[in-house]
Amino acid sequence: MEGLMKFSTSFLDSKLMMFGVNVAPKFYSCRDRGRFMMKASYSSTSYDTTRSVSKRNFLMDTFSYRINGANHTSLYFRDTWVLDASDDEYGGVLVNPERLPSDPDKFTFALRASLSHWKAKGKKGVWLKLPLEKCDLVPIAVKEGFEYHHAERGYVMMTYWIPEEPSMLPSNASHQVGVGGFVINDKNEVLVVQEKHFAPALSGLWKIPTGFILESEEIFTGVVREVKEETGINTEFVEVMAFRHAHNVAFEKSDLFFVCLLRALSKQIMADDLEIQAAKWMPLVEFVEQPLIQGDDMFKKIIDIFLARLGKRYCGLSVHQLVSKFDDKLSTLYFNTVDDPDLNCQAS
Amino acid sequence: MEGLMKFSTSFLDSKLMMFGVNVAPKFYSCRDRGRFMMKASYSSTSYDTTRSVSKRNFLMDTFSYRINGANHTSLYFRDTWVLDASDDEYGGVLVNPERLPSDPDKFTFALRASLSHWKAKGKKGVWLKLPLEKCDLVPIAVKEGFEYHHAERGYVMMTYWIPEEPSMLPSNASHQVGVGGFVINDKNEVLVVQEKHFAPALSGLWKIPTGFILESEEIFTGVVREVKEETGINTEFVEVMAFRHAHNVAFEKSDLFFVCLLRALSKQIMADDLEIQAAKWMPLVEFVEQPLIQGDDMFKKIIDIFLARLGKRYCGLSVHQLVSKFDDKLSTLYFNTVDDPDLNCQAS
Repeated sequence: MEGLMKFSTSFLDSKLMMFGVNVAPKFYSCRDRGRFMMKASYSSTSYDTTRSVSKRNFLMDTFSYRINGANHTSLYFRDTWVLDASDDEYGGVLVNPERLPSDPDKFTFALRASLSHWKAKGKKGVWLKLPLEKCDLVPIAVKEGFEYHHAERGYVMMTYWIPEEPSMLPSNASHQVGVGGFVINDKNEVLVVQEKHFAPALSGLWKIPTGFILESEEIFTGVVREVKEETGINTEFVEVMAFRHAHNVAFEKSDLFFVCLLRALSKQIMADDLEIQAAKWMPLVEFVEQPLIQGDDMFKKIIDIFLARLGKRYCGLSVHQLVSKFDDKLSTLYFNTVDDPDLNCQAS
Repeated sequence: MEGLMKFSTSFLDSKLMMFGVNVAPKFYSCRDRGRFMMKASYSSTSYDTTRSVSKRNFLMDTFSYRINGANHTSLYFRDTWVLDASDDEYGGVLVNPERLPSDPDKFTFALRASLSHWKAKGKKGVWLKLPLEKCDLVPIAVKEGFEYHHAERGYVMMTYWIPEEPSMLPSNASHQVGVGGFVINDKNEVLVVQEKHFAPALSGLWKIPTGFILESEEIFTGVVREVKEETGINTEFVEVMAFRHAHNVAFEKSDLFFVCLLRALSKQIMADDLEIQAAKWMPLVEFVEQPLIQGDDMFKKIIDIFLARLGKRYCGLSVHQLVSKFDDKLSTLYFNTVDDPDLNCQAS
C-alpha cells in the first residue's frame, strides 16, 4: 500500500491543496488478478466541462470517486488528470504516447478521467499507442474496455469506440506486398536463383528473385532493391506485368505479389549468402522449359505473359508519380500504355 | 505468498513425487514493478533432451532453479512445464493460445522453461498469440524478451527470435487495399456519389463509389459489394484499369487502391444512409468536366484512362483464378489481354 498512499498524497493532494481544497482521499484497493487496482470512477451526471478557474486558465471538473466503499466528490484539473491527447480529423483523439504516466495506478486513474472527459466532449474514437516499455499499461486499458487495433515490433495500438452506433474506426492493414523481378540481359538470358529455404514441392526450381517491399517503399524501387540484394545485379524497372492476390498467407493476412519486368544494368552476379543458395544467368529457353514451370498453371501463365511481353504482344503497367488534391500526397499510379505508339510494348 | 506456495506444492511437487523424487522447492520471490515474480532459470549446459524415462514415454530434463539464493537441480516433465506448441514450417514454434495458463506466475515459469527447451532443440522463432482476455500475460512476455508482431481486435501476436543471427521472421501486414468502381450504363451515364464525410478540398465532387476490401475478399468481388452497398446497383466486374500506391495513409501503413471498370446490371439507385449523402446516374460528359477532376492531376489521368478504355484504346487487367504448386492455394492472377483478338479492349 506504500506506493498508493504516496501517490495519493503527492499526486492528488498537492494539486488540490494549491487551491485551498483540503481533501486527502484514501483509495480503496483490492487485488485484482495479482495487481493492485484503485476503485475510482467518474459520475457522468456530475461532469461539467463548462466550469473553470478562469484566472488560471485551468479547467476544473467535478469528480466522484470511492473511498472505502463510500462515494466522494472532489475536483481535478484537466492538465493533470486528462491524458495528453490531440484531436484527429474524424472526431477522435490520439493519446500522446510520450506523456503517459509510467505508474499503473496513475494511468488507471487518468484513463478513467480521460474517457469521461472525451465522452462528455462528444468524441468518438480513442487511439492509445502503448510502447513496448509501457506494456504494464496494456491490461489496464483492456479492463477499461480498449481493444487492440494493430501492433508493430515496438508498440501496440489500442482503440476505444465511444458512441452507441457501430464502430467507424478504420481497419488494420490487411495485406503484405511482395515483388518478383524478371531480369533479361542482351544475350536473352534470365536472372535466376535457388533459395536456401524453399517449399519441398519447388526443389530444384530456378526462379526469379522475389521478396517483400519495405515500409513505405515503392513497388518499382522495392523490386530493384530485392534483385540487387539477392544477386548483386543492378537493374532498371520497366513495368508491372501482372499481379497475384492470395489469402490466408500469413495468419489471416492476404498477399499481393507484383510480377515486374526489369532491364539488366550489370552482369557480375554476387549471390546473397543468407537467403540464396545459387544465382546465375540462364538461357531463356532452358528457364521456360523447367518441368516445375510447365507443370504449374500459375507459373506457366506468368511465363506466357513474360514471353508475350518480350515478343511485344503484351503491355504491362508503367509507373507515373502524381500529386492529388485527394490527400495532397505524391503517390504512384500504375497504368497501361497501349495507346502510346512510341512504347515498345505496343501490340504489333 | 500464499498463491505461490500453493502453486509450488500442488503443481511441481506432485509431479516430482510421482517418480519418487522428494523435492519441495521454495521459490524465492521478489516484487518486480508491482508484480510477484519467481526467480527460476534453466542451466543451458546441463540441459539434455536425449535423457528420457523410456517406459513412460515422458521426456525428463535436468532443471536448475534458485531457492533462497542457492542453486538447486531438479527434474521436470515436458508435458507439464513446456507450453503446448506446434512446429511451423520454418523451424519455429506456435504456442497454442487455447492452453495457456491463466495464472501469471504459472505462465512466467512455463514461458521460461519453454524458451530454454526450444533453444536447446534449435528452434528459431516463437509465436505467442495472446487473446484479449489473457492481456495480463503481455507484460510477462515482454519481460522475457518478446516483441509485438501484429494485433487484431481480439488478440496480440508476440514473437521471440532465438538465434544470434538477424531475425528472419516475416513482417507484419503493411497495406490496406481499397477499390473504386467506374460503372457505366447503356445511356452513357456514370454512377456517382457524394459522401457524408469528405475532405474539404473535395466539397461538391461527384465521385465513383469506393471502399476497402474485407478480410480475405477478392478485389473483383469487393468492388461489386462496395458499389451495391453504397448505391444499391448490381454490377458485373470487367477489369482493373489502374492502381495507385500511396504511403503513410493510416499510421505508418500504405494503401493500394484499385480502379476498376464495372458493367451495370440494374438501374434503380438506393443510396446507403450511413455513408452516402447522394447518389445518381450522371451523363459522362458532365462527370468528366467537373472542375475538381479537370484540376487534379491524378483524377484527370484516371478519367483519361477510363475514356481510353471506353474508346477501346486501352486494356486493363482481367481476372484469372489459378491454383499453384507454390502454395497449393487458389489465387487470382490479374493480367492484360491485349493479344486476345476477341476482347473488346483490343487496341484498335
